[in-house]
Amino acid sequence: MRTTEEYKESLRKLRPNIYKFGKLIEDVTTDPVTKRTVESHARCYAAAHDPEYEKIFTTTSNLTGEKVFRWNSLMMSQDDVIANMKVKRSCYRLTGTCTGGVCVGWNCMNTMWATTHEIDKEFGTDYHDRLKKWILKAQKEGITVAGALTDAKGDRSKKPSQQEDLDKNIRVIEKRKDGIVIHGAKVMICGVAASHEIFVLPGGIYGEEDKDFAVACAVPRDIEGLTIVEATRPSDLRELEDNFEMPQTGITQAYLFFDHVFVPNERVFMCGEYKYTRSSITYFTSTYRACIGACVAGQGDVMVGSAVLMARANGLPSRTFNDKITSMIINNEVTYGVGLGAIAAGSAHESGVYFPDPLLANTNKVMVATLPYETKRLTQEIGGGIVETGCMPSYKDYSDPKLGPAIKKYLKAGDTSGETRAKATRLVEWLTLGAGVPGTMHGGGSPDGARLFVKALTPIEKYVDYAKKLIGIDENVEEPAKKK
Amino acid sequence: MRTTEEYKESLRKLRPNIYKFGKLIEDVTTDPVTKRTVESHARCYAAAHDPEYEKIFTTTSNLTGEKVFRWNSLMMSQDDVIANMKVKRSCYRLTGTCTGGVCVGWNCMNTMWATTHEIDKEFGTDYHDRLKKWILKAQKEGITVAGALTDAKGDRSKKPSQQEDLDKNIRVIEKRKDGIVIHGAKVMICGVAASHEIFVLPGGIYGEEDKDFAVACAVPRDIEGLTIVEATRPSDLRELEDNFEMPQTGITQAYLFFDHVFVPNERVFMCGEYKYTRSSITYFTSTYRACIGACVAGQGDVMVGSAVLMARANGLPSRTFNDKITSMIINNEVTYGVGLGAIAAGSAHESGVYFPDPLLANTNKVMVATLPYETKRLTQEIGGGIVETGCMPSYKDYSDPKLGPAIKKYLKAGDTSGETRAKATRLVEWLTLGAGVPGTMHGGGSPDGARLFVKALTPIEKYVDYAKKLIGIDENVEEPAKKK
Amino acid sequence: MRTTEEYKESLRKLRPNIYKFGKLIEDVTTDPVTKRTVESHARCYAAAHDPEYEKIFTTTSNLTGEKVFRWNSLMMSQDDVIANMKVKRSCYRLTGTCTGGVCVGWNCMNTMWATTHEIDKEFGTDYHDRLKKWILKAQKEGITVAGALTDAKGDRSKKPSQQEDLDKNIRVIEKRKDGIVIHGAKVMICGVAASHEIFVLPGGIYGEEDKDFAVACAVPRDIEGLTIVEATRPSDLRELEDNFEMPQTGITQAYLFFDHVFVPNERVFMCGEYKYTRSSITYFTSTYRACIGACVAGQGDVMVGSAVLMARANGLPSRTFNDKITSMIINNEVTYGVGLGAIAAGSAHESGVYFPDPLLANTNKVMVATLPYETKRLTQEIGGGIVETGCMPSYKDYSDPKLGPAIKKYLKAGDTSGETRAKATRLVEWLTLGAGVPGTMHGGGSPDGARLFVKALTPIEKYVDYAKKLIGIDENVEEPAKKK
Amino acid sequence: MRTTEEYKESLRKLRPNIYKFGKLIEDVTTDPVTKRTVESHARCYAAAHDPEYEKIFTTTSNLTGEKVFRWNSLMMSQDDVIANMKVKRSCYRLTGTCTGGVCVGWNCMNTMWATTHEIDKEFGTDYHDRLKKWILKAQKEGITVAGALTDAKGDRSKKPSQQEDLDKNIRVIEKRKDGIVIHGAKVMICGVAASHEIFVLPGGIYGEEDKDFAVACAVPRDIEGLTIVEATRPSDLRELEDNFEMPQTGITQAYLFFDHVFVPNERVFMCGEYKYTRSSITYFTSTYRACIGACVAGQGDVMVGSAVLMARANGLPSRTFNDKITSMIINNEVTYGVGLGAIAAGSAHESGVYFPDPLLANTNKVMVATLPYETKRLTQEIGGGIVETGCMPSYKDYSDPKLGPAIKKYLKAGDTSGETRAKATRLVEWLTLGAGVPGTMHGGGSPDGARLFVKALTPIEKYVDYAKKLIGIDENVEEPAKKK
Repeated sequence: MRTTEEYKESLRKLRPNIYKFGKLIEDVTTDPVTKRTVESHARCYAAAHDPEYEKIFTTTSNLTGEKVFRWNSLMMSQDDVIANMKVKRSCYRLTGTCTGGVCVGWNCMNTMWATTHEIDKEFGTDYHDRLKKWILKAQKEGITVAGALTDAKGDRSKKPSQQEDLDKNIRVIEKRKDGIVIHGAKVMICGVAASHEIFVLPGGIYGEEDKDFAVACAVPRDIEGLTIVEATRPSDLRELEDNFEMPQTGITQAYLFFDHVFVPNERVFMCGEYKYTRSSITYFTSTYRACIGACVAGQGDVMVGSAVLMARANGLPSRTFNDKITSMIINNEVTYGVGLGAIAAGSAHESGVYFPDPLLANTNKVMVATLPYETKRLTQEIGGGIVETGCMPSYKDYSDPKLGPAIKKYLKAGDTSGETRAKATRLVEWLTLGAGVPGTMHGGGSPDGARLFVKALTPIEKYVDYAKKLIGIDENVEEPAKKK
Repeated sequence: MRTTEEYKESLRKLRPNIYKFGKLIEDVTTDPVTKRTVESHARCYAAAHDPEYEKIFTTTSNLTGEKVFRWNSLMMSQDDVIANMKVKRSCYRLTGTCTGGVCVGWNCMNTMWATTHEIDKEFGTDYHDRLKKWILKAQKEGITVAGALTDAKGDRSKKPSQQEDLDKNIRVIEKRKDGIVIHGAKVMICGVAASHEIFVLPGGIYGEEDKDFAVACAVPRDIEGLTIVEATRPSDLRELEDNFEMPQTGITQAYLFFDHVFVPNERVFMCGEYKYTRSSITYFTSTYRACIGACVAGQGDVMVGSAVLMARANGLPSRTFNDKITSMIINNEVTYGVGLGAIAAGSAHESGVYFPDPLLANTNKVMVATLPYETKRLTQEIGGGIVETGCMPSYKDYSDPKLGPAIKKYLKAGDTSGETRAKATRLVEWLTLGAGVPGTMHGGGSPDGARLFVKALTPIEKYVDYAKKLIGIDENVEEPAKKK
Repeated sequence: MRTTEEYKESLRKLRPNIYKFGKLIEDVTTDPVTKRTVESHARCYAAAHDPEYEKIFTTTSNLTGEKVFRWNSLMMSQDDVIANMKVKRSCYRLTGTCTGGVCVGWNCMNTMWATTHEIDKEFGTDYHDRLKKWILKAQKEGITVAGALTDAKGDRSKKPSQQEDLDKNIRVIEKRKDGIVIHGAKVMICGVAASHEIFVLPGGIYGEEDKDFAVACAVPRDIEGLTIVEATRPSDLRELEDNFEMPQTGITQAYLFFDHVFVPNERVFMCGEYKYTRSSITYFTSTYRACIGACVAGQGDVMVGSAVLMARANGLPSRTFNDKITSMIINNEVTYGVGLGAIAAGSAHESGVYFPDPLLANTNKVMVATLPYETKRLTQEIGGGIVETGCMPSYKDYSDPKLGPAIKKYLKAGDTSGETRAKATRLVEWLTLGAGVPGTMHGGGSPDGARLFVKALTPIEKYVDYAKKLIGIDENVEEPAKKK
Repeated sequence: MRTTEEYKESLRKLRPNIYKFGKLIEDVTTDPVTKRTVESHARCYAAAHDPEYEKIFTTTSNLTGEKVFRWNSLMMSQDDVIANMKVKRSCYRLTGTCTGGVCVGWNCMNTMWATTHEIDKEFGTDYHDRLKKWILKAQKEGITVAGALTDAKGDRSKKPSQQEDLDKNIRVIEKRKDGIVIHGAKVMICGVAASHEIFVLPGGIYGEEDKDFAVACAVPRDIEGLTIVEATRPSDLRELEDNFEMPQTGITQAYLFFDHVFVPNERVFMCGEYKYTRSSITYFTSTYRACIGACVAGQGDVMVGSAVLMARANGLPSRTFNDKITSMIINNEVTYGVGLGAIAAGSAHESGVYFPDPLLANTNKVMVATLPYETKRLTQEIGGGIVETGCMPSYKDYSDPKLGPAIKKYLKAGDTSGETRAKATRLVEWLTLGAGVPGTMHGGGSPDGARLFVKALTPIEKYVDYAKKLIGIDENVEEPAKKK
């Protein structure tokens, strides 16, 4: 199985097609704007070879019986999906942020395992078999795979096929004998710079008029015709320097411009079967929105640790803040717990893969868009004025021969060194306001979208009946007409 | 298996020893102050015979292979504990409130299955076997069992053995050859009036000096020397009349005064092994605090139904309140989801029974003490002024020949009858302010107690290490001394 | 100025026309179902004669220069409206609940002082002068005046004039030379049993087609043709007994059935001038929704006191709960503070009376419908299991010669007597779940109505401009069309 | 009165003593790291000359009767303090962030007006007169004044005089005939780069042993011996470029190192009168914590505007988010309203200046540390995925001839241009995560400090008495001893 060094080596072999700050990145593993993201993913490879984490980060392939990276595996049971959560919580603890290249593509692959099974059953296609071959190769090579769902969308009052500019959503622009040509953009895609491949999935539920947009496939990150632009984060310009203002880890998101990209048939897993976009989005979001609870919990664990650290570095016993720390822990455990609960209430698909319960998964999406914000607020409250924005001089001043000594002198608060206080402060800023803040609000879809699901998945008329029976109402009670 | 009629018949055979409003209750199944509680439990017996609910309310005994009531069974797997949650959610949907007689005793019995196993292992006692025999009988007869943990406690700054009045906590006052004599009070005990037996468990974690208080046993509800006083609820005086102001269901809690009660050895499962009070309280609360999420969710389901009903009866489409209704559903699903999550993260005890994870279970206790209050608030907000306290004339006026017609005339708001509006209003009052409000705040222990557990069960120093590693702090960072 | 005894005496002289539990109440000052409400209001009269409270409860009439009860005065300045808040906070501290008879009518009278001024100005009517005469008499006699806005409403999708049953909203059914005849119902009206008169105001904003419903007038509580039915509250059946389960104070709400009630001209202050229903509702709600912050704060003060009391009676130092108690205080002060803020941002009407700012007043309505619920939850959390519903035996058992001794024995927790613990428990129940819970959620209109006001009163396009200017956007950015 | 150009010119005359990123800033008005802060303050001067804002930003001096900048005036009435709030809300609307140079010094000066009055009265000193002269000069020149309270503090378990390194808190190190020498650091001081002077106030309440730390004075920003280091903010490195990723406005905070700084007597307003540090901190925080509600409201107004803008730029009608927008408005108005309320409940000091009520002011501090975080969360929720961290390419890529066209093409969502969407996105990032986030959590002291005040200022025993009287408890109920 690939080592971290082999992982980095393999990324170096890809054609440079990623840009940031107006420049082409020649080597993603060393360029300061991507190296932290690569390092985050490298820690997953390291964890897979580390006895402490091995059981979490690897498993036995149900296809070959061989040991594979967990993120290349099919999740065939409740335990397998729980392992997904454990991978995520561990990743956040080890990197402080998101490692999208071992998350979204994995989910896409499991989603399509079920969806191709359904499509083949109706249409006699061979998508499932194509996917199986792709998975076998992925497992053998041990690759990282970004997942790309979000289209640029354009005018949201119109369907993809109604847009003035049809490129706003990725579509099949040409079908050839040996493959398809896709065109358009996927935006805000996570972990691309650290990935070998990108798994493309439809970003919505489409009807017949939008069938050209119903396309799923997996492409190499450096495929011909694909240009990638990295997005920015608050404080990411600090990453250009090497100092303690940033962890060595990180995460980036990107805009992907597909310009007439040819995808050979063996990499295509849906092509026009629009009816099944409902399947794929439902399976994908169920797993995503259940398991993201572990991301929030994992970053929350680091925030608990940082808050305790800050308190001590400020010269205060952390028990002063017991109540706040406990509230932070509870926020973490609620998102983790509801995620586990969604898995416990889930079920196996006919194709063998296991999906969490969508009602509980969507409930968790709402928690995930709310609770970590309060956890961050509490981290800042415990951390004191120094962790608030604008309260730490820059590393350049800190290490300046003239200014540095005074800064260090006044940073020292108790028995802990001023340097530790400065580092902890930067970590809190990075976690709560800066380049380490992951996108849990809209990642995997908006909380309002999740609320619609929650409402739709609840048998409200049944609940009305429980109420009626309890108090002895026999009358039929219908919805009144809207106010005229 | 016992039918509802047989269940009620069996209660009638018990010695009258329950009082309320200064009077002895001769027949708990017909006396207005207890009959609703009995009816609630009777619905569990009915459900067990109803094809729709049978799978939830019955199971196969792992001891005998025979079909038994779920609440008399040992929970040997994750699915068995999830079934506990399903029983609870169903009960709330069917009765609108708590059915403590099929909950707490069941939990006590499973708790002691593990604890007796541990005690016997250390001391060579035969508690486990005694318990097994008791369970076999319980399964055969299909009984309901209240559970009694909470002692009167007295002065909380002192241990049981330090109290001026030693009776404040139940203790073994005499050991005889064939049994023990216990004395003292258990207070705020749920569902006693509808139960055949009472399972007594230690209410705290005790040291050697309090070993007389380390007692667990099961006693018939009508055992000699036991006097029971029912407690009151807001609006329970309305129960004295038979009209639509109340559901036919209900729940009551009681004070139990044990006056030199002799308990034969075969009913005693702990007697002085104080060290194991830690075990029993931990197992008990883990199951209790995980599964109570289903109670809150089930009553929440009825509140969702009632809120929709009220909106319609007020002449408003319920979709006007979509956002609030979705928030209510999310509150329900969070407590249900964290409960399921605690079970998914749980583990099997050496003795075979399965317990939820205590960290997540205690996290849920805090949710359970918070979220349903907001759900109630939303129910009242949706319901309109009429559901607020003091906004409905009494049934006596409603049905008065002189006053009734005007009341009915003005209650009718849209297409729905005024009677339906009046009933729905009473249901909401009962659910949110009245006799149907169960004690989820302190039942199973206080949320502050749960917060202590949550903090203690979290490896905070490990979290500090994650933070330190991320930002490259090598220094040892210790807790400063408290401010002098 | 009237003493409390004279106040009660004057109520006794009114014609009995109030019913509860199917019976006509002969003397509201002694009948158990109304005497607590009367006692609450009597304490206002007492406070006016008490040097400690005199400055709050009395003032100098701007019309006569004589000393009058505060609740009969015109509020001509910021300080006068702040005094309204002080009256309310004091009343809640003295009675634990609402005293609607010194609140709503007072507000109506001030509202109509401004509105009649406006109507007279447009139509040359003499409403203002009629009102002035009525006020002079009210000040001289020192009366309590309930206010009645809420109509039965009927089908909410239809306007008053579109209702099948036109009686659903009070209207002028006949105009005579010397007065008008009104007909219909006002429901959920507060403090009627303790009032001498009722001030009737339109319950909504009406257009021309509904001009018959645009009627304002003041009528004696016992006017011919008016029948009153008291509504119920949870636990109010306990009021039938005299024991410590209830304070001596209380509040009730009522349904008013006006059956062809003749109102002489000098008591009519609006009659068909539908355009001015917008005025009257806006002025009324501004004052109501600002000042209600003091009600919530005042009851909150009592809850803080009760929580501390309960902690001590449970044998725990109240400092254990410092954080929760501080949160309760903050909840109180926020509603009080926003109310004061609304007053500070208010302005004087052309007619001389002063009104709070409607944006801040409506903001406070939302606070008032949210924060006290959390305060109640915290009171119950601090109070312990005993204050939860269903955890206290009835007074009859408590004082029973056989059962009482055990109950008392086990209630005593620390140095405080069991009786004190029992009383404090009942107080908390009454405040948080029972007959002392006032209707702050929908009283003065629903929080959703307030939210509509808040949105409408905010210059959002101006805020968009601030944002555009800051980041240099010149483009005109318009609302897109809704999704097709 | 000074124009904006004169203001900037006057700053240019100051001795350069401010550093950032290791470099001395020669001209604060043009250097990219400070020019935005200066521009923010310049807008206050502009507003003072703008008829729309003139009434808010200027007033008549009570000392001279001449027109002065509001921020140089003594606040002699409720209206004057309300004007402080109006200045703040306007500033935030015009700059998007804090303008500390027209806030803190102003507050210090008013605080010391009262405190010097008290000190002189006890000790016969002439501080008040000195201050008056300083104010007259400040009013004449129209200067901006930063305020410096927060010391480096050091080991928080020890008092200033107990620190190993006595420099951790600023102290008088030498008293000369003509003045004093102060030494030490003040940290996290706001708006220094845009100020002419700095007002130094004691950072805590000191006893006799710490009397050397009881020092208040006003010094020119460029006074000999003072070295200033600017602190950083997330995304402030973007400020080095001039493009639309940042507003032209901004705010910075700084560390001030006083190295044996001589302050002449006429600029010293407290020197050793430790008892009056209680006065100064109480007056300062009362005004600060009341008025900061306007800052939060003003930035919230911009967030409301940005959220509406983002929704439209995303192609969605903003009414889709009506409920969230209303919640944001309510958050703003609560902090504004409680601030106004604190002022309304305030009182005039013997010396003539007016201070808000400390209980309500401290209540507001807690709101201010909570509600804007939720407002930010809602802004991000409404803004969509694009406003989440990491979801926008950099300006360099946006304007790149090769990459730019695709970015612009895919940014356009509806009728609004892609450029507007990009700008609005950057504004939201700046407001919610970046360099525009002001320090409302700890600025003016921590929320926990405010909670201590709130608790201490509440007459809890009186509240206990209200409760006791209501339910008829005569017994003396005392605090039990803590658990042994």
